Parts: sequence; structure tokens; C-alpha cells
Amino acid sequence: MTADLTAPAGTAAGGWTDRPTTPEGWLDRARQVATTLAADAVERDRALAVPTAEVRLLKESGLVTLLGPVAHGGAGQDWTTALRVIRAVSAGDGSIGQLLGYHYLWFWAVRLVGTPEQIAAVEEQATREEWFFGGAVNPRDADLVIADEGDELVFRGEKSFSTGGRVSDVTVLEGVIEGTEKHVFAIVPTDQPAIRFKGDWDTLGQRLTESGGVVVDGVRVPWEAAAGYVRTDAGWEFRPRVYNTLNVPLIQLIFVNLYLGIAEGALATAATYTRDKTRPWPYTPDLKESATEEFYILETYGDLRSKLWAAEALAERAATLIEAINAHADTVTEQERGEAEVVIAAAKQVAIDVGLEVATRVYDVTGARATATSVGLDIHWRNLRTHSLHDPVAHKRAEVGRYALLGELPAPSWYT
Amino acid sequence: MTADLTAPAGTAAGGWTDRPTTPEGWLDRARQVATTLAADAVERDRALAVPTAEVRLLKESGLVTLLGPVAHGGAGQDWTTALRVIRAVSAGDGSIGQLLGYHYLWFWAVRLVGTPEQIAAVEEQATREEWFFGGAVNPRDADLVIADEGDELVFRGEKSFSTGGRVSDVTVLEGVIEGTEKHVFAIVPTDQPAIRFKGDWDTLGQRLTESGGVVVDGVRVPWEAAAGYVRTDAGWEFRPRVYNTLNVPLIQLIFVNLYLGIAEGALATAATYTRDKTRPWPYTPDLKESATEEFYILETYGDLRSKLWAAEALAERAATLIEAINAHADTVTEQERGEAEVVIAAAKQVAIDVGLEVATRVYDVTGARATATSVGLDIHWRNLRTHSLHDPVAHKRAEVGRYALLGELPAPSWYT
Amino acid sequence: MTADLTAPAGTAAGGWTDRPTTPEGWLDRARQVATTLAADAVERDRALAVPTAEVRLLKESGLVTLLGPVAHGGAGQDWTTALRVIRAVSAGDGSIGQLLGYHYLWFWAVRLVGTPEQIAAVEEQATREEWFFGGAVNPRDADLVIADEGDELVFRGEKSFSTGGRVSDVTVLEGVIEGTEKHVFAIVPTDQPAIRFKGDWDTLGQRLTESGGVVVDGVRVPWEAAAGYVRTDAGWEFRPRVYNTLNVPLIQLIFVNLYLGIAEGALATAATYTRDKTRPWPYTPDLKESATEEFYILETYGDLRSKLWAAEALAERAATLIEAINAHADTVTEQERGEAEVVIAAAKQVAIDVGLEVATRVYDVTGARATATSVGLDIHWRNLRTHSLHDPVAHKRAEVGRYALLGELPAPSWYT
Amino acid sequence: MTADLTAPAGTAAGGWTDRPTTPEGWLDRARQVATTLAADAVERDRALAVPTAEVRLLKESGLVTLLGPVAHGGAGQDWTTALRVIRAVSAGDGSIGQLLGYHYLWFWAVRLVGTPEQIAAVEEQATREEWFFGGAVNPRDADLVIADEGDELVFRGEKSFSTGGRVSDVTVLEGVIEGTEKHVFAIVPTDQPAIRFKGDWDTLGQRLTESGGVVVDGVRVPWEAAAGYVRTDAGWEFRPRVYNTLNVPLIQLIFVNLYLGIAEGALATAATYTRDKTRPWPYTPDLKESATEEFYILETYGDLRSKLWAAEALAERAATLIEAINAHADTVTEQERGEAEVVIAAAKQVAIDVGLEVATRVYDVTGARATATSVGLDIHWRNLRTHSLHDPVAHKRAEVGRYALLGELPAPSWYT
Repeated sequence: MTADLTAPAGTAAGGWTDRPTTPEGWLDRARQVATTLAADAVERDRALAVPTAEVRLLKESGLVTLLGPVAHGGAGQDWTTALRVIRAVSAGDGSIGQLLGYHYLWFWAVRLVGTPEQIAAVEEQATREEWFFGGAVNPRDADLVIADEGDELVFRGEKSFSTGGRVSDVTVLEGVIEGTEKHVFAIVPTDQPAIRFKGDWDTLGQRLTESGGVVVDGVRVPWEAAAGYVRTDAGWEFRPRVYNTLNVPLIQLIFVNLYLGIAEGALATAATYTRDKTRPWPYTPDLKESATEEFYILETYGDLRSKLWAAEALAERAATLIEAINAHADTVTEQERGEAEVVIAAAKQVAIDVGLEVATRVYDVTGARATATSVGLDIHWRNLRTHSLHDPVAHKRAEVGRYALLGELPAPSWYT
Repeated sequence: MTADLTAPAGTAAGGWTDRPTTPEGWLDRARQVATTLAADAVERDRALAVPTAEVRLLKESGLVTLLGPVAHGGAGQDWTTALRVIRAVSAGDGSIGQLLGYHYLWFWAVRLVGTPEQIAAVEEQATREEWFFGGAVNPRDADLVIADEGDELVFRGEKSFSTGGRVSDVTVLEGVIEGTEKHVFAIVPTDQPAIRFKGDWDTLGQRLTESGGVVVDGVRVPWEAAAGYVRTDAGWEFRPRVYNTLNVPLIQLIFVNLYLGIAEGALATAATYTRDKTRPWPYTPDLKESATEEFYILETYGDLRSKLWAAEALAERAATLIEAINAHADTVTEQERGEAEVVIAAAKQVAIDVGLEVATRVYDVTGARATATSVGLDIHWRNLRTHSLHDPVAHKRAEVGRYALLGELPAPSWYT
Repeated sequence: MTADLTAPAGTAAGGWTDRPTTPEGWLDRARQVATTLAADAVERDRALAVPTAEVRLLKESGLVTLLGPVAHGGAGQDWTTALRVIRAVSAGDGSIGQLLGYHYLWFWAVRLVGTPEQIAAVEEQATREEWFFGGAVNPRDADLVIADEGDELVFRGEKSFSTGGRVSDVTVLEGVIEGTEKHVFAIVPTDQPAIRFKGDWDTLGQRLTESGGVVVDGVRVPWEAAAGYVRTDAGWEFRPRVYNTLNVPLIQLIFVNLYLGIAEGALATAATYTRDKTRPWPYTPDLKESATEEFYILETYGDLRSKLWAAEALAERAATLIEAINAHADTVTEQERGEAEVVIAAAKQVAIDVGLEVATRVYDVTGARATATSVGLDIHWRNLRTHSLHDPVAHKRAEVGRYALLGELPAPSWYT
Repeated sequence: MTADLTAPAGTAAGGWTDRPTTPEGWLDRARQVATTLAADAVERDRALAVPTAEVRLLKESGLVTLLGPVAHGGAGQDWTTALRVIRAVSAGDGSIGQLLGYHYLWFWAVRLVGTPEQIAAVEEQATREEWFFGGAVNPRDADLVIADEGDELVFRGEKSFSTGGRVSDVTVLEGVIEGTEKHVFAIVPTDQPAIRFKGDWDTLGQRLTESGGVVVDGVRVPWEAAAGYVRTDAGWEFRPRVYNTLNVPLIQLIFVNLYLGIAEGALATAATYTRDKTRPWPYTPDLKESATEEFYILETYGDLRSKLWAAEALAERAATLIEAINAHADTVTEQERGEAEVVIAAAKQVAIDVGLEVATRVYDVTGARATATSVGLDIHWRNLRTHSLHDPVAHKRAEVGRYALLGELPAPSWYT
């Protein structure tokens, strides 16, 4: 269950000549990508380098179209595999893992919110053309404002956070039509004058996720591209394929796997360091020849490994609930959705607790010299600490508690 | 995933007229048994009551022959189900859960150590006659001494711990033939003059497990009943069916499910108490009308529920490894066995950590009056604290650490 | 800073022929008493034995009059010493430590609530006659109802909790005069027909504190004995010596020292057991000759010892604040009182967290055989778990948080 | 007990026109210095800026000569105050706190290792001239090699770590005279061609401590300046004033106060952020108007504040042991020294545990936007995580454990 970041990648970036055909094959591919990413993750992170080459790697490795239909060149994999791939990639580079995770979410979103025709069209085109998705949908900002010009909708406004930004091919926008309560999602080309990324993302961690502010000033979308809307006698009406709050548990489970991947990366990197460089402590009656014989080092690795395995096992369990829902998304009940969301909330809290512990304690078993900037072992703590604040974990705990104590399910929201 | 101990049992003890046919049916049956057991678990525990009626309940409910062949009247279930049943029963009464777990182990042991003929014979007879198994095999005592009298083996010696004692129908003995290195396991009738239980088991928890000392003074076993031994030209030789150290991971995984069940019992009992009896705290600016609205109570339940789900998920993952081994036990490799053992060790440590936390913190969310002896909420902490000392968890952590850091597997022993 | 419970008591109970003259002498005396108490604490606890002999021991050792004026035969010690004495005695027997702590509180209460004349009179008589104080003042029950019969007040009602009960010489009652808002405290003889203890105290821990329900049916108190009341032209008016909410921080700090003492008792008892009986673990590559060389055992003792020292140091710091207040109790400000209360709340939370951890983890370093009922190591967990629920620690944390974040002090209440 | 970093400094750097005369006055001065330092600590840290101006601030504020004799212009304060000053300064800037702490240590070292004449001379000159001390004495490197040229000793060699480097006026060297076992300490001018700092210190935290490697190539020291050596008929012999292992507990206690100061800085900075900027969570049934009313935020601050107070209280207790030793350093016993060292080891472990928890969890109560690089709240975690690896805390725990369990004191070493 450990991501072995020290394994040879088996390929130069971009040198893949074949496509895996099994889930395990795709997971191996993800691990190779992770190894490639890990090689300079720390340097790129410091340089706040736009991850253009890394998104290209995701495309060339085939991971970008993992969820795409086989008929159109995609891998046709399910979310179980996609979530493991996110975890594996995040072990090599948390920023790229997040970009990939959000990409999968937005790639998938049309399935939930779109009409059957839109679903077919988007999945085909996105897969054939290897679109990399970004999104500008932060719910804690005001919605974008949409002017309804008859045939076209025109989006205007500003979001303080987006994801994918300059490295995405397409961006998902969300807004409200002026004078109505109608929310509209649309996929638009990222590279257009009406979208301007502010380039203001400079944070503790997850630095290469292109997550800064965005100004939307006149993005035009034909009504036909408004996700889930169909023309009726009464005008355009919202008739999405399925219960449209399924995205929230999914994105939260993507987060869980992002966190677990980051923690795996921390543990694997530390283990390599301990084996190669850590010295036994000389000032003790219980002297050892090697650091790897020190009881506290073994016990700490065992403690962290065990907890991380447990957190991963719960994430895997949550994935089975998501698969079950996907298998009949059209008929999913609020109870099913709610119970999946609660288990995911539980997995998230455990992943954060364990992940932060791993990312902090690995230093105890690598030692003082591992704090050299050249080692960069802090990237895991920074990445995890940053994204794990997405929404307050205390409220996640209370959410699980309401279910455990009272059987209550969370009211669907942007975060539950 | 919660054992609901408050559900009506749906049956008086002994009133079952049918047999479940599915794993989920058996799990429901186990939950009914747990509910029945929970009703007077605290009183029986205090009275140190010999669990004769409770073993009868296990027989009447069909749980005793859960692993037995369908052809002979057993349920023919696998270990995945057996482990969940142990967990469910332990939520109602940790002592009885332990008795059942050890029973399954010893029932199964012949599969690993026996010859094909012995396996067939024991499984048939034990299932038909609903044997309840006990064992007198504590490895930290000296082995029993066996006199080889030609046709018969005669066991003599003393064990400071056994399990099942007076409530078992048969007892597994282990000894070494005098003057040799030959270890012999045998199943013998419990009720015979040559076996005397000392009745000296009086502990903090797991009080009704009949786990005290035993004196073996002249138990006679025909050579044919020596597990795994076949007569050859060179005399009786040990030719068991499979690699005979598989029992150890299995028993350790039984422990894991015992602990998880106890923790589930604590959480479920506490939740009922909180809902029914706990009062909100009046001396605060953030006054609530009900204890179930207090943020700290919700957060605590959420925290405990999440951690316990994670521990259970890892236990379930470990069970899949055991099933994989059972599917080809004859050809299992040391690597497979070792990796399963490491995951089980990890699950054990997490289960203990989480379980003790649950069993201690439930009081924080039930309140002071829940310390009344009549409530008996401490039984979970006592049971868990007692059995979790079976072997030092620090060494389990180091074991997992050696694997995580160095890829080393534990040398098979009585505890690894 | 460790209570050494293994030291010879240096005296048979009741055999003291002298009185210490220094704080350190009194602390040694308390340790001797603790050693005597520890010898049969577990047995008495199980038997729910009325602690008559133990209260006699407190009297004979001189501890009962520790705070009493030297002029009247008391030791004339301050609260710093009294709190350490409570801690030391609690290390031997938490129940007796609690009885002594509440006794000191009620002995002292007259200083805060009484008139100068009452203070002088009570301190003299209580010291000369070695009164042992109990109290029936649980604020979460309704107040007792007082009929004002002119010269006498007559108390009637019921309390679900009291402390000291049958072993006290005098009991503090609190009630409200019918038809008024006037609260009255009074010290009354315990042994009178109008006071009936229900003998219904049967709990997880702190079992020998005589803390059960009490029925008060016609206890008569002359107006002169109503604490703090003086006769004026307008009738009896409440003119206590000082700001009368000082008792609450004090009782909370008594609790802190009770908890710390219990934790010290657990640690000391466990250490003796580990040294004498715990065996090293044989199934490890890093084999030791003695359990006391096992790294995890040393590390665990170090971890627990360090944390407990820290908790004690904060309790000592809180004691200096109480002494500062006592030095000018007449002029203490709300700010001073509030800040002391916050530091005490902080000390309480730390003491509880650390204490429960100590009381649970000591088993990890003593091993499985330490769960024998004859060892009784669980008494510490039971005692601590029981009393630490007195008021919810989560609200204590929030209280400290309001101060740390906002500078707000808790509004004085029965618990803050 | 909180360092209030938001208080106005009350003075421009360098604008002090007076000197405090009381310990509390000096502590206020330290807090003012901390506030000044905190204003640009994050920026200077990122820039890896040589702290020349900051050392000047320490001199101008008078803190550099805090321990110096009053007769020569020093403040004549004791270690209790010096340790609090280190803590206060570290709350503003951990790097500068460390520089000051090491400076005090080396300033003081001559008192322990020097001859009476050397002590008098060094204290006078160092105070009058406001020497800022650095050291190149890392014990895990080989000793410097000293050539004995008769009148002079010539030091040569390399150290991988030093402290103070380019910002120090004098540097303490340690070496062994070739062909002997004679260790020699000497104070030498930092700014000389024979000392070359490699400028290779680039780490996660404590970045401005000038702690990199140093090459010593021909530093000449007259024999008279060899600390503790006196000329005898038999040549130069080592006759220091006192038991010369007292430095080690002292430096470890300096570390403790450094860690506590860093944690205080984290808590104070976070509290300001929470009050000013954190928003309440909108997606909950228990909606609040302000983040400062959220129960989990209050509870978290209370938890962290309480634990940090406890850790500080233990550090204060350890300081009293150091003062007691200083009061009779010439006659201190190994027992006294050892017990102080154990309490300091305990304080260190608690300070690290609590400090890392504070530095990680403050983000939970400030929220996602606090991860902006412009906020820089991570500096506390980075500083603490870096220096807390100085020597393995697990071995500190074992050290305390040996004392708690067995009464054994650590053998004096460079780390115990």
C-alpha cells in the first residue's frame, strides 16, 4: 500500500509508447508519473513554476483521459481507480495531484449536471482532445452574474479562488442569471481575453495548483452549452440527468485521497532518508550500529504506517460507496448520498489528523540534518496543512457526530 | 457500520426456529445475540458468572457452527463473516465474543495442522455435535510433557492460562514428547478427571472467558488423534496439510475484531445514554436546550466514530488478506503470510489505540451520572484494557516499522 | 516531585507522637498517611467500606487541622501546603484525598462567607474539636428550602449528592429562605435525626467519599449561625467578610490536586510493579534481560513522568495565585479572581488529560498479569474518570479559550 | 503569561534612553524587542538576511549585557530572568532568540570553566565592550586540533555547525591538544583571517542564526587564555572553578525557553488573526455571528493555551533548580546536577510536543486564508521543527524514564 517513490520510473517523461489496460496497470503508471514529479517537486514548488510541463506529462501518460470512454481513446476506468491514481500522483507532488483531482471532478461533472446529449458530446470531445479542466467555482465568493442575451449567456464577475488556471484547456464557470435564481454551469475555453487570471496565488503549500483569483469579463456561452438546460416551450429549463449534489461528496473524497497521497509521499521520502543518511544516537546506554535498529525509529514508522493504512482503508471503503452511487446515480436516494457523504467526512478527518502527524513526525526519524533546505521534506506538511483548511474539520467532525449520535444526515451544501 | 445494541432482539434466547442463509443474515443473527448478551453483561461480569447459558445461546443461535460444513449442518461461512460475527457479538459482551473467537480458531486449527482425514473427521463431528472448543496452549508457559506409550500419548503439566475452560466441550492441548523436539496438538474431551481447571481467573476485564490456570494430569490421546501425524515406516511423522504458522495471524485478527466490537459496544451504549439522559451544561454563554446540540458532544462522537470506522476498515482489509491465504493455504508463501501478519499487526495497534480512546472518552459525552455502578459503562474499558495487553503493542509497532522502513517480515513466532 | 508510595510509613496508624512544624514536615506526614492508606485502598474500595478508620487516621496524624490556627492546636499552614497534602494523600487513596480536600474547603469557607466573629469562633472550635467537615451543597439540585421562624432557620429538602456524609462531624448546608432570594450557608452537626444519608453512593470510582443523596428534614439553625449574616435594624443582613465567590476557584484547584495525586499514585504503583514483576518480551530481535531495559518501557515512563510534572508545575503556579488572593482577600478584584480561575481551569484540563493518559497507559508498561483483580491497578483510572466528570472539561477549555483569545473572564458561577 | 506581540513597541529600535532596573522591567524590554523583531521576522527569514541590525538591537536595548556585572555596565540579572528574556524574544523571532540564548550561554561559560582571574577579566571586558558571543563547538564533529607552540596554542580544523557566525564579536572554540587528551576552550575574536564561515546555513527554520560550517585554520591563543588552565611547575593544568558539565543542562534549558517562546509567538499571532480576519463557518445548523464565538475555536485556543502554560510552568520550575545550582556551583553534587538535567529533559519534551501541536493547530483556528505567504504563520512551525531535532526527543524521554522508573541519573555528556 506504500507508494515507493524511489523506484525507477521506467520511462523518461513523455516516453510512454503504450497504454495500460488494467486498473493495476494505470496505478503503476500513476506511480511512475509520481516518481518523475517527485524528482524536482521541491524546486518547482519554490520557484512557483507554472506546471505546464507537468500537465503535459499527465496527458502523455494517459492519466488525463483515465475516466474517458474507451471508444474515444480514454481508459474507461472507474472512480475507484481514479481516486487511487490521485493518491499515487499526490505522493510525488501534491500540487499536481490536486490539479489532476479537480480535473477529474470537472470532467465528470457533466455526467451529473448535463443533459444526456451534453454528456455524450463533452465526454467525446474532452477525451479526444485531451482537455485539461480547471474551475472557477468558489462558493464562498459571490456567484458570477450572467446576462441572458437570448441565444447567449454572458458571464461577468470575479472569483478569489479558481483551480487549474493558466494550465487548463477549459474552465468550468458557474453563475446566476440576473434577476433569477437560475444557476448555470458551463465549460468554456480557458484561453480567451474575457478570462484573466490574476496570478496572485502565493501560499504555504499546494503552490503549483494555479489557484489564484480570476476576473471574468464577458465570457459568452451559447444557451446550448448551459449544463443541464433544455429548451422547452416555457424557455430554457434545468433538467439535469441526476440529483445534482453528488459532486460534493466526490470532491471531498478527492481531497481525502490527495491528503493520503501527500502523507504517503512524506513517509516514503523519510524512509529513504532514514535508511540512507540518519545516524544512530551515540549518547545512550542502548547503543545501536544503525539508525534503523533504534527502537523508537522502528516504533515511529510502525505507528505512522499503521495509522496511514487505516486512513487509506476508510478512503477505500468510501470509494465503494461512491461506486455504488455511480452505478445508479439516476435513482440515488438522499439517504444513500448522505451516508456516503458522512463516511467521506469521517475519512477526511482521519486523513487530515494522520497526515499532519506523519508530516510532522517524519522529522523525528530522519533527524536534524533533514531540515536542510536542499532536502525539502517540509513540502508535505506545507501541502497538507494548506489544503486541509479547505473547510473546517471541526464541522466535519460535528457532521459525523450528528449522524453517529442522532442518525441525522447533513443538509446538502457546497461543503457537505 | 455501527452495532445498534438498542434494537429489539427479535427473539427470546433459544427461540430461533430457522437458520440464516446469507452472510448478512448471520451478521444480523450475531447482532441479535449481542443484544441479548448486552442486557445483563454487566451483572454477569460482576458476578463472575460461568457463561454456561451464554455458550448455549451461541449454540442455539447457530453461531457455534458458523464455519462448519453445510453438509454436516454448519453454516459454511468464511472467515470474513466469522470475524464480523466476532465483532458484533463482542459489542454486546466482550467475554463471550472472545470465547466465540477462540472457539472459531480452534475449530479451524485442524484445517491447518491436521491431516486430510483428521480435517474431515473433526469438521464433521464438531459440527454435528456442536462442540464448543477451548484451548490450553499458552506459549509463555512451559509445554506440557507427553509420554509416548506406544499407542497412546499421555499429557501432563500445567498452564497458567487457558480459554474456554469449564464451558467448552473439547479442549486443545499442546505438548512436547519427552526426549524429543516433537510438538503435538490434540483435541480432547474437556470433561474428564485428568483435566482440572483451577478457577483462578479473576481479572479487571474479560472476566467470563474461563481463562484461568489448568492442570493436566494424565490425559490420554491415541496417536491417531495427534494432529498432523501419520504413521510411517519410521514411526509417527508430522505431515500437516499446510504451513502451520497461519494460526497466529488469524488469532491476532480475531483479537482485532474483539477490540473493535468492544469499542462499538462502548460507543453505542454511550450514544443511547447521551440521547436519553445527558443534560446540557447550564453554565455557559452558548446555552443549548439539549445535550445532543452541544458542539463538543457532537464533535466528540464524530471524532470517535470516524476513528473507529477507520480502524474497522483496516480490519476488513486484513480479512481480505486472510481470505486470499485461505483460498490457497497449501501454497501460501512466507511473503504472503508475513505481509498479512504485518497488516494485522497494524490493525491491532490502531484498534487498541482507538478502542481505549473511545472507552475513556465516552464518559465525557455521557457525564458524571454515567459513573453509577448501575450503568456499568466501564465494562468496555476494562475488557479492552485487559485483553489488549496480550502481547506488547510497542513490539507490534516495531514489527510494522521494520516492514515499512526495511521491508523486513517478522519471523513467525507464537505472537507474530 | 514523585509520591513514593513504596517508602516505609515509618509509623503505625495512630502512632504519631509528635507534630511536624514545617511545610515539608507536613508533606512527609501526608506521604506517610498515603502509604498507610494505599496498603488496603483497593480492598476498602471494593467493599464500599465506610472510611471511619481513615478519617480517624487523618485526625490522629494532624492533617485534619492543618489549616487551623496554631493557637488552638492547628498546624497553621497555608493553602500551598494544604493542596500538596491533598495531592500526596490522593496518591495513596483518591477517596480519602477527596474527603480531606472537601474538608479543607468547608473548614475554610467560613473565612470567606462568615462574619469576623463567626470566623474566629468556628476556627477555634473546629480546630480544638477536630471537626471533620462534610457538605450538602450540590448546586445542580434545587436549593434547600428554609423556613424563617424568627430566631431559628429550619432547613428542608433533598440533595442528590453530598460529600463526607456519615464520616463527618459537621455538615455545611445551603438553602434559600422561603419567599426571598436570600441564600444561607450554615454548619450543622451531622449526627442528628433531621439529616438522613441515603447510602446510595455506588459508583465507578471515588467510592469511599460518602457522596450519596441526603434528606434534610427540619434541621434547625439559630440565625446567629447563618454564615455572614448580622443583625441590623432592618433585620438579618448578609455582610460576609469578603467577595464570596472565591470558594469556586479554590474547590476547582482542590480537584486539580486530587487528580494529580491519583495520577502520581498510578505511576508510582506501576513503577514498583514493573521493577518487581514485569518480564521482558522474548519475541523480538532486540532482546533485553530485564523489562526495565526495554526502550518502550523507559520511553513511556519518561513521557508520562514529564507530562505529569508539567501538570503539577501548573497546579503549583495556580496555588501561588490563590495565596496572593488569600493575602488580601478583602480587596481582591474581579480581574484577579477571574485570572486565577482561568489558570486553575487550565490546570484542571491538563491534569485530567494527563491523568487519564497515565492511568490507562501504565498497563502498557506493567503487562497483562497486572490486570489481576488482586493487583487493582485500575483504581486510579476509576477514581480519576469518575471525579473528572464533575463539570465538563470541554467547557473549561472554552473558558480558557475566551480568555486567551478575547481576554474575557468567566462570569462567576458555581463552576467557574 | 502570554507574550502580547500586538502591543506597541513603545520605542523605535535603538531609541532606548534608559535601562530597566527590575527583572519585570527587563522582561518588558524583551517584549518590546520582540515586537520590533516580529514586524519583519517573516521577510528577513525568507531573505536569509544576516541579522546584523538585530544584534545591534539586542545591544542597544541592553539585553546583550543582561547577565553582566552591574559594576561594569551590565544589568546583573540572574538566569531566571535571562531565560524569560530568551522566551520573550523568541516569541518575536526564534532565530534572534536562539542567538541571544547561545550568547548568554557562552558569556556564562567562563564562570564554569574559567579560573577566577579569567572569570573576572572576561566578564568585565565582555560587558564593557558589549561582546556578542558565538560558538563553534558542535560535539558531533571531530574536535579541532590544537598545536601547542609553547606560549601559544594554534587551533585548526572544521566544524559543520557553529552559532552566531558573522554577527558575533567573539567566538568560543574547543579543541584537543595534539597527542594529549587535553580539551581546551578559548574565546577568540571572530573577525580574523584564520576563521572562515562557509555561509552554508540554509534550512527549514531558525534560518537567521548564522549556524553554518566554519573553517578554523591557525587561530592563535595565548596559553593564558585557555579557559581554566593555570601554569604549574608541571606545566599548564586544568583547574576550572567548578564542575564543568553544568553547561549542558543550561543550554538544554535555553532550548526549552526558545521552543516555548516560538509557541507563544505562534499563539499570539494566530489569536490576532482570528480576531481580525477569521470568518464564522456558514454551513452549520449552529451558526455564529463571529468566528470568536465558534465553540471549536474557543476550545482549541483553551486547549493550546492550557498546555502551553503547563509547559512553561515546568520550565520555570527547572529554572529554580538552575538557580539553586548557581547559588553554590562550586559544591554542586552529581545528584543535584543530574536531577536538574532530568527535569530539564522533561521540560524539553513537553515543550516540543506542545509547541509542535500549537504551531500546527493554529491554522485550524485561523482558516484557509492564513496560508497566504504574506501571512507567514508557518515560521513558528519551521523554527520549532528545526531546532527541536537538536538531539532525539525519544532519548530524552528514555532518560527521564530511567530516572522515574529506576532512579538512575544520566551520565553527563554533551547532550545530557
